[in-house]
Amino acid sequence: MIAQRLQALRQYMASNQLDAFIIPSTDPHQSEYVADHWKLRTYFSGFTGSAGTLVVTQEIAALWTDSRYFLQFEDECKDTPVTLFKQSIPHAPEHVAWLTELLAANSSIGLDYRQFSKAQITYLQSFTAQKNQQITNCPHFAKTLWTDRPALPNFAVDIHPLEFSGETTASKLQKVQEVLKEKNADYYLFSSLDEIAWLFNIRSRDVDFTPLVTAYALVGVTTTVLFCNTDRFNQGALKAFQKLGIEVQNYDAIATYLPSLDANTTVLTDAASLNYACFEAIQGRFAFENSLVKELKAIKNEVEIQGAKNCMIKDGVALTKFFIWLEKTLKKQTLSEYEIGRKLNSFRQQQEYYTGESFAAIVGYKGNGAIIHYTAPSEGSAIVSNEGILLVDSGGQYQDGTTDITRTIWLGGTPTEKIITAYTGVLKGYIELEQIEFPLGTTGAQLDAFARVHLWKQGMNYPHGTGHGIGSFGMVHEPAQGFATGATTARGTTPHLAKQLTTIEPGCYVANEFGIRTENIVVSKEVNQTSFGTFLGFEALTLCYIDTQLIDTTALTTAEINWLNKYHEHVLTQLTPHLNEEETSWLRQKCKSL
Amino acid sequence: MIAQRLQALRQYMASNQLDAFIIPSTDPHQSEYVADHWKLRTYFSGFTGSAGTLVVTQEIAALWTDSRYFLQFEDECKDTPVTLFKQSIPHAPEHVAWLTELLAANSSIGLDYRQFSKAQITYLQSFTAQKNQQITNCPHFAKTLWTDRPALPNFAVDIHPLEFSGETTASKLQKVQEVLKEKNADYYLFSSLDEIAWLFNIRSRDVDFTPLVTAYALVGVTTTVLFCNTDRFNQGALKAFQKLGIEVQNYDAIATYLPSLDANTTVLTDAASLNYACFEAIQGRFAFENSLVKELKAIKNEVEIQGAKNCMIKDGVALTKFFIWLEKTLKKQTLSEYEIGRKLNSFRQQQEYYTGESFAAIVGYKGNGAIIHYTAPSEGSAIVSNEGILLVDSGGQYQDGTTDITRTIWLGGTPTEKIITAYTGVLKGYIELEQIEFPLGTTGAQLDAFARVHLWKQGMNYPHGTGHGIGSFGMVHEPAQGFATGATTARGTTPHLAKQLTTIEPGCYVANEFGIRTENIVVSKEVNQTSFGTFLGFEALTLCYIDTQLIDTTALTTAEINWLNKYHEHVLTQLTPHLNEEETSWLRQKCKSL
Repeated sequence: MIAQRLQALRQYMASNQLDAFIIPSTDPHQSEYVADHWKLRTYFSGFTGSAGTLVVTQEIAALWTDSRYFLQFEDECKDTPVTLFKQSIPHAPEHVAWLTELLAANSSIGLDYRQFSKAQITYLQSFTAQKNQQITNCPHFAKTLWTDRPALPNFAVDIHPLEFSGETTASKLQKVQEVLKEKNADYYLFSSLDEIAWLFNIRSRDVDFTPLVTAYALVGVTTTVLFCNTDRFNQGALKAFQKLGIEVQNYDAIATYLPSLDANTTVLTDAASLNYACFEAIQGRFAFENSLVKELKAIKNEVEIQGAKNCMIKDGVALTKFFIWLEKTLKKQTLSEYEIGRKLNSFRQQQEYYTGESFAAIVGYKGNGAIIHYTAPSEGSAIVSNEGILLVDSGGQYQDGTTDITRTIWLGGTPTEKIITAYTGVLKGYIELEQIEFPLGTTGAQLDAFARVHLWKQGMNYPHGTGHGIGSFGMVHEPAQGFATGATTARGTTPHLAKQLTTIEPGCYVANEFGIRTENIVVSKEVNQTSFGTFLGFEALTLCYIDTQLIDTTALTTAEINWLNKYHEHVLTQLTPHLNEEETSWLRQKCKSL
Repeated sequence: MIAQRLQALRQYMASNQLDAFIIPSTDPHQSEYVADHWKLRTYFSGFTGSAGTLVVTQEIAALWTDSRYFLQFEDECKDTPVTLFKQSIPHAPEHVAWLTELLAANSSIGLDYRQFSKAQITYLQSFTAQKNQQITNCPHFAKTLWTDRPALPNFAVDIHPLEFSGETTASKLQKVQEVLKEKNADYYLFSSLDEIAWLFNIRSRDVDFTPLVTAYALVGVTTTVLFCNTDRFNQGALKAFQKLGIEVQNYDAIATYLPSLDANTTVLTDAASLNYACFEAIQGRFAFENSLVKELKAIKNEVEIQGAKNCMIKDGVALTKFFIWLEKTLKKQTLSEYEIGRKLNSFRQQQEYYTGESFAAIVGYKGNGAIIHYTAPSEGSAIVSNEGILLVDSGGQYQDGTTDITRTIWLGGTPTEKIITAYTGVLKGYIELEQIEFPLGTTGAQLDAFARVHLWKQGMNYPHGTGHGIGSFGMVHEPAQGFATGATTARGTTPHLAKQLTTIEPGCYVANEFGIRTENIVVSKEVNQTSFGTFLGFEALTLCYIDTQLIDTTALTTAEINWLNKYHEHVLTQLTPHLNEEETSWLRQKCKSL
């Protein structure tokens, strides 16, 4: 099937004089998770991972992705003509140098401008220019090739109420308008869906796992236009927007609106997120700025932080009930990884304001835990029994917040020394980074290694970053702060500020044997003010016991043991009011002092 | 005087239609320490710091430098019309955005192409192009303005013997030639003096503190030309070079040689170090590569590592004798910081193969220790008595190696709690980083914070990187590896490899109170090979006791106390064979187990 689709694409390429075609994983908004309509890369390659770029020539179909997805690729694409090209750095455009080198001078490369940011096209051009290679915009290439392509989503849009958002749209817009006045500019053009959802306090379910709305927004000092199909709003919402001076126009209207702007207009925008089709439409009228909203949004207000704390209780209760169910059930029968994931979701569904998972839950038994972005298939997933190791990475979308948590538990039998060493190293790393105090503005690359250093001492490591920002009823991976080794990634270079929500999630993976990861969400806060400056620290918000069966307690320092006991005490205090007697007694056992 | 010199420069600017002039601190070889001939920035500003750029317009004379030099600037430039502009990142060209913003469109900026690398001019052009500002090459601007300018150095060149270099020039050249063949290129053009000194095994004393030779080198597969005044070599050296196919031409001959190269020639070179005048001369014939020699040179061979170890014994003996002398003398009399620095040099002079200091020794008493690149003036430096804190950062050039060490000692009286906390935090940071094990290829930015984390916990920090590479009878600050917070500096982004020499030197500074720094040179080495990869660690080479008077031993872990006891035991074992009985007994006391 994939072979046929690639064959059709190659025919299209031949008849349009294209020597290569690039299909990335994203949509016109540089989204991480995209609506089915935009799953072009999956359609033509069979690969469903969230990161990866397909590059097709007449000779080769190359799927470029990073180490998190190598095993998944082998699994999904083994019977296709697609070849894996291993990226050393996640999301890095390593295919560009390869492709432009491979192609002859004066070749032509096809792609859809909407799927590429201005920054990405500029990067590509810096290579194609050297050999006079052409980039051809093909916005309609999939029309004849993908006949049963799903339509763009058009669900009703909900207004995200003040009790969850903590800030009115008027106040948020005013912040943007102040920057416009200060910079003497006319408009700020937003294309990132999470930024638009935050700015206008709107939510929907266009995209799996993320409550976003497909839209563009042009914010001006006097005129503000939200490009989002008007039939998605109820009359009350439209009237409220009108009162704020917000005009709602259909999504597609952006294509004609932007070119019609006066020639003297100055439009601020973010080169890293704006797609190249929009960029062409405002040629000569743009000025690039950092994404203002990305920065505003990353610092949570008190209502959002309280919402996150509420969610952690709900998530903790759901997870406790889930782990009790799992332990009980496995005493009597086996379960598939897939069933386990669905059951976990059903426990979350019992919680207030729950709208769905924040990403596809990873339930990885034994060796499957080593597949970092593993998703258990609905048919034929591994059968989990009363022994061995199980990794569960999951999260929920609640109207008052977004969660993301990983726990690795031992189901029975005798663990190997290697597993105990790895699990203990991961836990020590988590504690080390969570307990660090650091100057305001320290970057993720400076902090990342603290979560690794105990594993390094054991000759171990993990091939992914240590954490990411997280939204408030928004994206589970929210830019820009985080912890990453790479000095070139946003998660590596972005300074940490107070009141940000970030995950800490070290891990350790041995192919075909086990995967271990321990992940909490932490909030950053000021902990010290001295003549040397302001110092920040982290506070764990996630509330779920950490399995002590795999800990080598002799390898823990007194401070680490104290940390674990205190954390477990806190989990107990927070969760027991919401548990029955039997559940409480079970959790008390799991949270027993070391 | 500075006012008059600036006045003359402004007249020159006016008569040459220049609206601004940029004078950096470097020479045509991007050297850190430069011959007096190239001290243009000092001549026109009075500022002698090793990093800083002077930008002159008709209205302002702006000296851009970083926090290491703020106090020094205030001291040296207080009676001049020069204004300090504070850089947030050392060596970053932060003046460029400021100047091009300040100047009107179509303005003209003068500078000497030779003082700027290709990369620096490209960066400058990316700003000037926006306002159609011109960059004008003024290679002769100082001729009439600086009439008593010192001539270029022309000392005899020494051949660095194989017993110290560990590798013949023939072998080194062959490595370059292999790369040329592999890349199908004709020449490699070298302009960094340390790279040329390494490649040709030549040394001299053109530059303070660094045994380098003013030269360029063009290495070809068949023809190799060393551009260095021929009268600097003895006949034997010239004959030996001839045998190796190396032609020696005078230094200035490069200016005519490069443009005469065939139009089809391909010259590899390093955009970061090649000066723009040379770049212009090979326009259309160049290809940029990483500096091959920088990478080869950073990995020391066994002879160089053994040489470094030998130097550490000599340095340790000199420092022990010096600290004994200091303690004894201060019991009877006071001493100036300047005297103390000279005396330290005299103890090193008693050691074999010593040729001079590797940088201007920093002897900072009390508050002067907080001036990070402090140099005690020969007249009127602070008077040191039998109490308080003293920071001594010094190093030596020996034919078998280069040293750099800092110790901070307590001279008497009762130290404040703040000093003890800071000293203990610095020591803990040193141990933390020195003891780390990490995957091959980990960068300096990932490791840097391990030396800070204990200070951070106390609300303290230091405003400089944590360490730098060091040469072998070469530059005391040798690129590229090191430890730095900045993800944009080479010391931050360069991967650490085995067999490199690097300093670890955390510190803590409180203006007008104290400066603390503890610095050792370490060698990197393989410590583990697992399925996760190769892991490196560090081994301290520097041999000198660490003053235990300022340590809060209750704040040390057992592992830290064991480290210190073991280090002191090693220092004793290594140094006592070279000390007399009295010296040995003194050192034994200082190295007493905690």
